[in-house]
Amino acid sequence: MAERFLALDWGTTNLRAWVADAAGRPLERRDFALGVASLAPGEAAARFAEQVRPAMQAQALPVLMCGMIGSALGWQAVPYADCPAPYAALAGALCRVDVAGPPVWIVPGLRTSRADGCGPDVMRGEETQIFGWAMADPARQRGTHLVCHPGTHAKWARLVDNRIDAFVTAMTGELFALLRTHSALKVASAIPSDSAFAAGLAAAGDGGALASRLFTARSRVVGGTMPAQDVESYLSGLLIGAEVAATPALLGVAAGADIAVVGDPALCALYGRALAWHGHGASLFDGEAAVLAGLAAMFRQARAVR
Amino acid sequence: MAERFLALDWGTTNLRAWVADAAGRPLERRDFALGVASLAPGEAAARFAEQVRPAMQAQALPVLMCGMIGSALGWQAVPYADCPAPYAALAGALCRVDVAGPPVWIVPGLRTSRADGCGPDVMRGEETQIFGWAMADPARQRGTHLVCHPGTHAKWARLVDNRIDAFVTAMTGELFALLRTHSALKVASAIPSDSAFAAGLAAAGDGGALASRLFTARSRVVGGTMPAQDVESYLSGLLIGAEVAATPALLGVAAGADIAVVGDPALCALYGRALAWHGHGASLFDGEAAVLAGLAAMFRQARAVR
Repeated sequence: MAERFLALDWGTTNLRAWVADAAGRPLERRDFALGVASLAPGEAAARFAEQVRPAMQAQALPVLMCGMIGSALGWQAVPYADCPAPYAALAGALCRVDVAGPPVWIVPGLRTSRADGCGPDVMRGEETQIFGWAMADPARQRGTHLVCHPGTHAKWARLVDNRIDAFVTAMTGELFALLRTHSALKVASAIPSDSAFAAGLAAAGDGGALASRLFTARSRVVGGTMPAQDVESYLSGLLIGAEVAATPALLGVAAGADIAVVGDPALCALYGRALAWHGHGASLFDGEAAVLAGLAAMFRQARAVR
Repeated sequence: MAERFLALDWGTTNLRAWVADAAGRPLERRDFALGVASLAPGEAAARFAEQVRPAMQAQALPVLMCGMIGSALGWQAVPYADCPAPYAALAGALCRVDVAGPPVWIVPGLRTSRADGCGPDVMRGEETQIFGWAMADPARQRGTHLVCHPGTHAKWARLVDNRIDAFVTAMTGELFALLRTHSALKVASAIPSDSAFAAGLAAAGDGGALASRLFTARSRVVGGTMPAQDVESYLSGLLIGAEVAATPALLGVAAGADIAVVGDPALCALYGRALAWHGHGASLFDGEAAVLAGLAAMFRQARAVR
């Protein structure tokens, strides 16, 4: 386990890098403002060689990366793996990039042609966190589990015997950002409020008629039953509540089932509240630990077959 | 019926003015770039006196106006009338503005504390179009009718024996504008497509899980099953379809019921397609004719009691 590698979670807006050992223990960690959206076409390899490797003092280490860096806007377009996607198949399908020096691999994203009523869909990066969550405990590699990864584009995946057999994306985080920044619901100043978040959860109902329920954020203020400073927490509760109300059923998961929430801890806590409101058990896991665990597991397999 | 008046539909982004006779026949019509959102605080009266009256050559005419001009951002805040709101009560509750010269009235907006699962809610301006639609035919003033007014904030009202007894707003138009302008679903160039609109209607399903269904606009393009130029028509179909699928039930209207659609003719036509898809009969009416009919009916009552 003494061998080290450079692990990269290279997404649209940010690049997070670790030097880790093969067990996934982080030895060093840095963020780079080098999100794929900020890269000029074709410059990913050069930026990596000039900025990331030297900063991490990782000139001689093999590299494993996941995320949007495997898209046409990233280093190179890595074809999606199709669902159902067993962990072993994905880990065996890493794309080795054609560069001199130590090997550089990119984890393929996943594609599903349908997700029980809500396909088609794609992901890049979350598959590594989901499998990282599963690899941390053998019990998660057997039976059926629902994993929720909240974010700008939240992903919900059904994991069956350690294969992702269906998933669905909800644009909840992006809708929240659009509404608080650009819409008629925008307020001059917001103050986080647990009770307004709870009111939003209640207003979300079964998740239907979302375009109508959203407007209540305005009519409550106009009608004097909610202070304007509560609007953002109310909207957060409403949007997350609507997502949580509708998504498990899309993936065939029964009411009350336990759901694993993997991602940013503060956001996971909000999802935990929403899941509890809807009668689900929720277990929260740090997304940063999950991605590192996933990359380390795949690195061990790649190294073994090299 | 020879008496004339100045009829104003004074909304957030636009002011539309007519000189009309008391029967609602337009004699002159002009648009002014004087939406309430563009007014400095307190300047509505001066702008009206300096720009609107002279341009319409209507110095001596009484004036009746509806819309956001009756909000705190407009001329003056006119209290909402509460639902259920009979036409006669609303027409008898016009707010006479304190200005010298011929009378100036503002139509109150409506407020509902609930709308069968989706309250509270407010409207300003659409009530005049809805009653204008009803006043054009005595048959519409008896029994139960569902009237849809599409737009940035679409309004759906249940009219029972010529009173608006419940209504609900859907932010469909605003969501569409946000998504096509600011979101990850934005495309460089869009081409209107009937078949993409129809695909969006189909993808809307029962209207639930909207944040998930929206993402399919992206995953279809990424997955190669839809050209990027189709995204806007697809989103339009998806958002309107989701609204049409969910809203009649919120107002207790059965599947298949006939629905009156009052508003911009091109937008009404899209709603007509969505309603037909969901098995509703749809009758389309021009919103401009409806607002003028509503203002004229209220003017006749105001004049009679003056």
